Amino acid sequence: MKKTESGEIIRFGVSMDEVLLSKFDELITSRGYTNRSEAIRDLVRAELVKESWAKGKTSQVALLGLVYRHEHGDLMHRLMHLQHEHAQLIISNLHVHLDSDNCLEVLILKGPTETIEHLAEQLLSTKGVKFGQLMRATTGKEI
Amino acid sequence: MKKTESGEIIRFGVSMDEVLLSKFDELITSRGYTNRSEAIRDLVRAELVKESWAKGKTSQVALLGLVYRHEHGDLMHRLMHLQHEHAQLIISNLHVHLDSDNCLEVLILKGPTETIEHLAEQLLSTKGVKFGQLMRATTGKEI
Amino acid sequence: MKKTESGEIIRFGVSMDEVLLSKFDELITSRGYTNRSEAIRDLVRAELVKESWAKGKTSQVALLGLVYRHEHGDLMHRLMHLQHEHAQLIISNLHVHLDSDNCLEVLILKGPTETIEHLAEQLLSTKGVKFGQLMRATTGKEI
Amino acid sequence: MKKTESGEIIRFGVSMDEVLLSKFDELITSRGYTNRSEAIRDLVRAELVKESWAKGKTSQVALLGLVYRHEHGDLMHRLMHLQHEHAQLIISNLHVHLDSDNCLEVLILKGPTETIEHLAEQLLSTKGVKFGQLMRATTGKEI
Repeated sequence: MKKTESGEIIRFGVSMDEVLLSKFDELITSRGYTNRSEAIRDLVRAELVKESWAKGKTSQVALLGLVYRHEHGDLMHRLMHLQHEHAQLIISNLHVHLDSDNCLEVLILKGPTETIEHLAEQLLSTKGVKFGQLMRATTGKEI
Repeated sequence: MKKTESGEIIRFGVSMDEVLLSKFDELITSRGYTNRSEAIRDLVRAELVKESWAKGKTSQVALLGLVYRHEHGDLMHRLMHLQHEHAQLIISNLHVHLDSDNCLEVLILKGPTETIEHLAEQLLSTKGVKFGQLMRATTGKEI
Repeated sequence: MKKTESGEIIRFGVSMDEVLLSKFDELITSRGYTNRSEAIRDLVRAELVKESWAKGKTSQVALLGLVYRHEHGDLMHRLMHLQHEHAQLIISNLHVHLDSDNCLEVLILKGPTETIEHLAEQLLSTKGVKFGQLMRATTGKEI
Repeated sequence: MKKTESGEIIRFGVSMDEVLLSKFDELITSRGYTNRSEAIRDLVRAELVKESWAKGKTSQVALLGLVYRHEHGDLMHRLMHLQHEHAQLIISNLHVHLDSDNCLEVLILKGPTETIEHLAEQLLSTKGVKFGQLMRATTGKEI
């Protein structure tokens, strides 16, 4: 494995009961992993991302998914207005017309934990928004 | 409230202890709700969406978020290849260059529960993908 | 409905599309609810409990479940030692011998959010503990 | 490390970027781990337990936590009745008087995924139960 942008690759040993290991191998094979190291790195990274949100890091990346009825009163204007008030938080938007009534909108957010969570709450509570969820992702740095 | 695309609006009564109700009012006000009905509808919808995934419905909408290093070997080709094998599942993609190394990609997926979850696993286990998560959303129909 | 220990019962109206309402009725019937009010109160309470943990309240109740191999080195002593260091947090313990090797232990914890979470981490990371999870419950007050 | 009840101990190598590894070491130290192997085994086990519930295994162990007002109508009788109907599922119970009104009850359940989840829903939907949650644990076998 060659050097990455982040640092040297270190190799260390892990001990595991053969029964546990064979169950793990079975699981990761079914998920498409071709080696254990990558599966273990993914578990480690997922844990670090979760921790970074619990600790309220100042630089986060998140996805906000919203499903709404586009014809609901002035919903479009209110969503647009809220987004423009926080324009510096929103990297980009993707909009999909799910059917004649329903839209899916995805916002890519970058900023501090609290600011992202507050904007998400404001958008989710807007009348006409039927579904909303925040995916707490990562900048990809240091992991 | 006028009629929606779905059906008539029905009004029913809910009984609640005043202490519980005042805690609820406080919570929803802080989240930006202007009335209780909408907050309650959102709780109900969220529960129905969760249930529909648990029951394995055949028509779902989901967002898959991936953070990866674009220069990682032939990752771009493998991701592209996997996506084209499942092209009928993927409505659209949004790509963001997070920094010189890291990319964020969002896939909008539509299809049966199991097929979506299987594709998500295959993409998440691809080497070079640092973070991946599936947001189980909704078509917006009937809710 | 008679008065509870908490306060007066208030009745208020909720508006809901008939399609959404019929899906909700179907869901709660399958879960054993006999009326909507109780199902809605449960959704509201669950949301308040979740919020109270997110906000780090000072008086919480939690369950910690641990599955471990009782013969693993000095595990029993270490678990006992850790618990006695935090005796004021632990209301009681329930122990079940799952099979010849495995034990299940449940700790009922009462105290501030952070102290509970810290003790849980210390117990979960003890070698020999195979599974551990914290259920963030409630004192039941005000909800 | 000596042999366990389950099988031989196998040692294998894991490659990790030094930046990722140092973040991981920092996280696990703060959680009280004294070596990486145990932290990695715990991540692996947690993933296997989650998977076993998603796949609906026939032999599971779970904890059900309930908080309720003991004086709520005939709640005690209904809870008792429901539990006796499923007596073969319930290994034991722990009851704590939280205050003059509120009780915490913990049920240790053992059985098939679906049966456990169904009983949990029936108990949670009982009127007077303010909070209920199911902790999906493990028999401890093979992990």
